[in-house]
Amino acid sequence: MTTLRPHDDYDRLLEAWPAVQEYQSLATRHGIDDIFQDNGGKLLQVLLLMGLKIIPGREGNDAVDSSGREWELKSVNIELTKGFSTHHHMNPVIIAKYRQVPWMFAIYRHITLQAVYVLEPADLEFYYTKWEQKWRDDGNKDINNPKIPVAYVMRHGRLVYGEPPSFATRERQPTPHDPAGFAPDDE
Amino acid sequence: MTTLRPHDDYDRLLEAWPAVQEYQSLATRHGIDDIFQDNGGKLLQVLLLMGLKIIPGREGNDAVDSSGREWELKSVNIELTKGFSTHHHMNPVIIAKYRQVPWMFAIYRHITLQAVYVLEPADLEFYYTKWEQKWRDDGNKDINNPKIPVAYVMRHGRLVYGEPPSFATRERQPTPHDPAGFAPDDE
Repeated sequence: MTTLRPHDDYDRLLEAWPAVQEYQSLATRHGIDDIFQDNGGKLLQVLLLMGLKIIPGREGNDAVDSSGREWELKSVNIELTKGFSTHHHMNPVIIAKYRQVPWMFAIYRHITLQAVYVLEPADLEFYYTKWEQKWRDDGNKDINNPKIPVAYVMRHGRLVYGEPPSFATRERQPTPHDPAGFAPDDE
Repeated sequence: MTTLRPHDDYDRLLEAWPAVQEYQSLATRHGIDDIFQDNGGKLLQVLLLMGLKIIPGREGNDAVDSSGREWELKSVNIELTKGFSTHHHMNPVIIAKYRQVPWMFAIYRHITLQAVYVLEPADLEFYYTKWEQKWRDDGNKDINNPKIPVAYVMRHGRLVYGEPPSFATRERQPTPHDPAGFAPDDE
């Protein structure tokens, strides 16, 4: 017969749980139904810290500030990667959309927010031009998720929260993707 | 100039944050580096509640119990979907692996664990046989993520935690996938 009984640490989880639920309640009120997926818990931080609102059912950009200006939001965990993801099908239509708005880049170490940088459209023109060029050179082929390096963001952006993160960190083993099969296997 | 200032709810986030960090510390100790991704925070609950350990760098199954028995773990949010995901390339090799172990199915409403069911290999043979048959009928073509209905799990499984969930829930709008672009766009 199978032995299934709680780990000693289960009591500690139960102690933390009411605050986690409170965190989720807050998230729900701001349009995030599940803090444990798609970085929902991190997104909540950035939204509340910056006074942004999710744009529901957005086709275009991501969030809107208190003055009505739209923003593109990006985040990265610098323990795992040194570049921001952009779009899986980058092409001139997407780039035209991107050119309309400022971008907000949130830099994390795991779940801890280290810094937030703002880049205005002109600050990102270097990449827009480069991507358009590559798209044409490749015969009008969409680019799969070109990255924007954290170093570029730190150099060209305006720091609006936190401290410039140091890259000199101890080596650490990242969690493998979906370590225990809570997503479909082989995803 | 841009208006970026914290929402009134930011103070409430800061109040909950120490417990969230404690929750993450607990997760880190059990092999989960980020509770806000891939259902990490939910996985921690199931691991601690059932006394399971993640199998690091697993090729095969997901977790191991205190007696050394391996388990396949699955979860579902019944507010969003009524079936458990399985594997994106289901074929006889995967099925042979699945036949070796019991499965643990965790049923959530958003972040709240409602029930956990255990199905032994014999309880899932209905699906293994069906998938093998379909794989052959389709000319040895892998099946993309065949689902196991929650209703099947409730009917054939052994309830090891919680109460059988009711399906009669109020309608609710799910959060769109990655509502604010914290994953690459168009993922």
